[in-house]
Amino acid sequence: MDYNKLTPALAEKLQNLLGEKRFQYGDAVKEAYSHDEMPIYGRFMPEAVCLVESTEEVSAIMKLCHENKIPVTVRGAGTGLVGGCVPIHGGIVISTERMNKILSYDMKNLVVHTQPGVLLCDLAADALAHGLMYPPDPGEKTATVGGNVSTNAGGMRAVKYGVTRDYVLAMTVVLPSGEVMKLGKTVCKTSSGYSLLHLMIGSEGTLGIITELTLKLIPKPVMDVSLILPFQDIATAIASVPAIKLANLDPQSIEFMERDIVDSSAAYTGSAVFPTTVNGHSVGAYILVTLVGDSEAELTLKMDRLGQVAEQTGAYDVLVVWTDGLKKDVWAARSAFLTVIEAETRLLDEMDVVVPVDRIAEFLVYSHDVAEEYGVRLRSFGHAGDGNLHIYCCANDMDEVEFRRRVKAIMDKCYAKCTEFEGQVSGEHSIGHAKKAYLRESVGETAYGLMGAIKKAFDPDGILNPGKVCG
Amino acid sequence: MDYNKLTPALAEKLQNLLGEKRFQYGDAVKEAYSHDEMPIYGRFMPEAVCLVESTEEVSAIMKLCHENKIPVTVRGAGTGLVGGCVPIHGGIVISTERMNKILSYDMKNLVVHTQPGVLLCDLAADALAHGLMYPPDPGEKTATVGGNVSTNAGGMRAVKYGVTRDYVLAMTVVLPSGEVMKLGKTVCKTSSGYSLLHLMIGSEGTLGIITELTLKLIPKPVMDVSLILPFQDIATAIASVPAIKLANLDPQSIEFMERDIVDSSAAYTGSAVFPTTVNGHSVGAYILVTLVGDSEAELTLKMDRLGQVAEQTGAYDVLVVWTDGLKKDVWAARSAFLTVIEAETRLLDEMDVVVPVDRIAEFLVYSHDVAEEYGVRLRSFGHAGDGNLHIYCCANDMDEVEFRRRVKAIMDKCYAKCTEFEGQVSGEHSIGHAKKAYLRESVGETAYGLMGAIKKAFDPDGILNPGKVCG
Repeated sequence: MDYNKLTPALAEKLQNLLGEKRFQYGDAVKEAYSHDEMPIYGRFMPEAVCLVESTEEVSAIMKLCHENKIPVTVRGAGTGLVGGCVPIHGGIVISTERMNKILSYDMKNLVVHTQPGVLLCDLAADALAHGLMYPPDPGEKTATVGGNVSTNAGGMRAVKYGVTRDYVLAMTVVLPSGEVMKLGKTVCKTSSGYSLLHLMIGSEGTLGIITELTLKLIPKPVMDVSLILPFQDIATAIASVPAIKLANLDPQSIEFMERDIVDSSAAYTGSAVFPTTVNGHSVGAYILVTLVGDSEAELTLKMDRLGQVAEQTGAYDVLVVWTDGLKKDVWAARSAFLTVIEAETRLLDEMDVVVPVDRIAEFLVYSHDVAEEYGVRLRSFGHAGDGNLHIYCCANDMDEVEFRRRVKAIMDKCYAKCTEFEGQVSGEHSIGHAKKAYLRESVGETAYGLMGAIKKAFDPDGILNPGKVCG
Repeated sequence: MDYNKLTPALAEKLQNLLGEKRFQYGDAVKEAYSHDEMPIYGRFMPEAVCLVESTEEVSAIMKLCHENKIPVTVRGAGTGLVGGCVPIHGGIVISTERMNKILSYDMKNLVVHTQPGVLLCDLAADALAHGLMYPPDPGEKTATVGGNVSTNAGGMRAVKYGVTRDYVLAMTVVLPSGEVMKLGKTVCKTSSGYSLLHLMIGSEGTLGIITELTLKLIPKPVMDVSLILPFQDIATAIASVPAIKLANLDPQSIEFMERDIVDSSAAYTGSAVFPTTVNGHSVGAYILVTLVGDSEAELTLKMDRLGQVAEQTGAYDVLVVWTDGLKKDVWAARSAFLTVIEAETRLLDEMDVVVPVDRIAEFLVYSHDVAEEYGVRLRSFGHAGDGNLHIYCCANDMDEVEFRRRVKAIMDKCYAKCTEFEGQVSGEHSIGHAKKAYLRESVGETAYGLMGAIKKAFDPDGILNPGKVCG
């Protein structure tokens, strides 16, 4: 695709539209807009940044860029890990960071209307203050909800509540032409034509720009308890998961973590909430389960059943995390894993594969073996309940070019193994421009070709987030 | 679009492929394949019927029809209500009725692999025999699961468990070209490119033919109880629903029914399971709630809370349906509503709208007023928990042309009201060829145009189920 550059005349039009404070052009463009949280995929400066505040502004900008064939990349909080919001073809970045208003709650239909730039942590807290819960709970709490919808983020509570996709009822979208389209309604059932709403979810800002969202909420659970199950090693730990899932406990989360990352987290946060030795056994891996219920009696019954499963599956113990303080510490430790890795690592790359739950251990063993073969340190944690693994390739004392070469070799093998295991290339971090080749290999030419045809139907000139997913 | 007719030479090829028993041609085509369960939308005889048994056969047929530009319409059990499986442009009907095998269970990942022609009732029973539950539970139990996926059927348990869309993990699809494409995997999380899987769900056989499905199952609930809440009228009954939803009971179903349909059902089945007078009050409408739990103690607690809500919202009483026999009778009565209406009615048409839960009563009152104005009898029941209303226009002593004229006038007004209420044209029966104009009006030209462009990307010659949804 051939794109045009932003001319000073067009820049002036945009500045008139947004005012000086909300328009960055040329040297005024802040460096932060050139990358996301995985800078190994490259830094690309946009020609201008538009800090939009309304659907109308986004529509006006898109009309201008459509007429002039200027690429546009939309960006939330920039917490992505695959270069999804990075303007690799230059042009304009539209940042939704100022569209950060929770617009209204509809308590009769249990939904919230919100702008896309609201942070996940703010939405979650605000919903709780209304007695409601927004169930999707990715580890990165400072991502925007718009970004979460664009990547179909999953998170810790997916095993009980599902993923972001399951909570999006409606949205307002600005198309590449500048046209405004409303998709979905404040209702949960529909069989009314092709689901353009579900097509938009997870499309990483390549088909349209989300400017408003209607999200489903649920009543806040009355109480919850977390339980730590320490195991000898990751294989034993993962083997307990199908049994836990079959025990009718309807757990909110089933997370796994290897000892290594738990140790780093303890060193980083200064609080060792996960025991490393239990009844004389050195712990190699953990399963962290959260149960919810309406009463202490109900939770006690569920904990008893989980205790039986734990014993049958070889857990060294079951440690109950009941007090609010301890619960906060445990989950803060869990949520800090990526931060801990980032703090300890100079060169970093990641995989976000999903494999069937019964293949997790096998996949992890395989990945560790491959990484060892190439002399790269692998660190992993993730969502045992749904098979979504976060695997980080880490190095400190290596040349970057050499690191990239080795990581590519590791990933080629691991993604091929993932496909062999009937897994998915990404669970929640999505494709961006970093994982396009692996997506193509995984879904095959026919499906990849259809994705390209859909992109063309929405964006014939290819101006919206070019070079991403299948563009 | 211009289509070709099936020539005797092509018919011979198809007969060679399928054998005599599984190929109907010309006069041998059975009349049943010319309509679904709403024959008011017309009867259209196919030129041939193929009773397929495998993906390979479907692919071979599609290749032949693609080369020769012959329309193909896929059909499950033919229980649809909008003409979705009716070959309005002639050509071939591919029936999946013989692809009725449940292929295997994967107990570690809690999924079932199945052919699309398996009946919903058979899948549900078989899953239960494996200690598992397939949550979607539409009233029509003899529909095929392939049909359910193609219409994104919802049913009674959507309020707790979601709709069919939420249980489809993977599928094998034959494209109009005859190419075979696999979508999705046995995992619940994915952010791997545009969701072609979700695009296929609810696309009514217009984008591809589903030949295999991987469906998510859940552990069978330990026990359940149903409760009947009788109210003075439909407005009072519906007003209780948001309160029930907010009471943290996580009900499996919240159904509503008007007195009129309950009386007919009692007369038809010979068993009056719903009380018509309670504490001296004549009942005008009912809410039927099902709660699930792990123990009698848990259910008793939930029932107590529901009792409080019922009292606060003006229910005359709470009738507990605890015994298996009574439960079966109550739900059999509920599931028989359409059969009862069909048995009593010569001329029938229907709407399957969804409105926000707090607008149900208002919408029903409006519909009844409009129908009365046009002298057509309206009968309704549906899913109060999710706002999905089944509204039937009925007449016995009216000329059919006159009935159609009046029903069109009623529907024009009701669908416009539905759009005004921010509702959806169809909750689970879908669009077919009967509701295309209303879909177009409801979603607008931009969205409808994008649906058309997607159809073109999948099926450039328009041979697959032509004339449906947006074709």
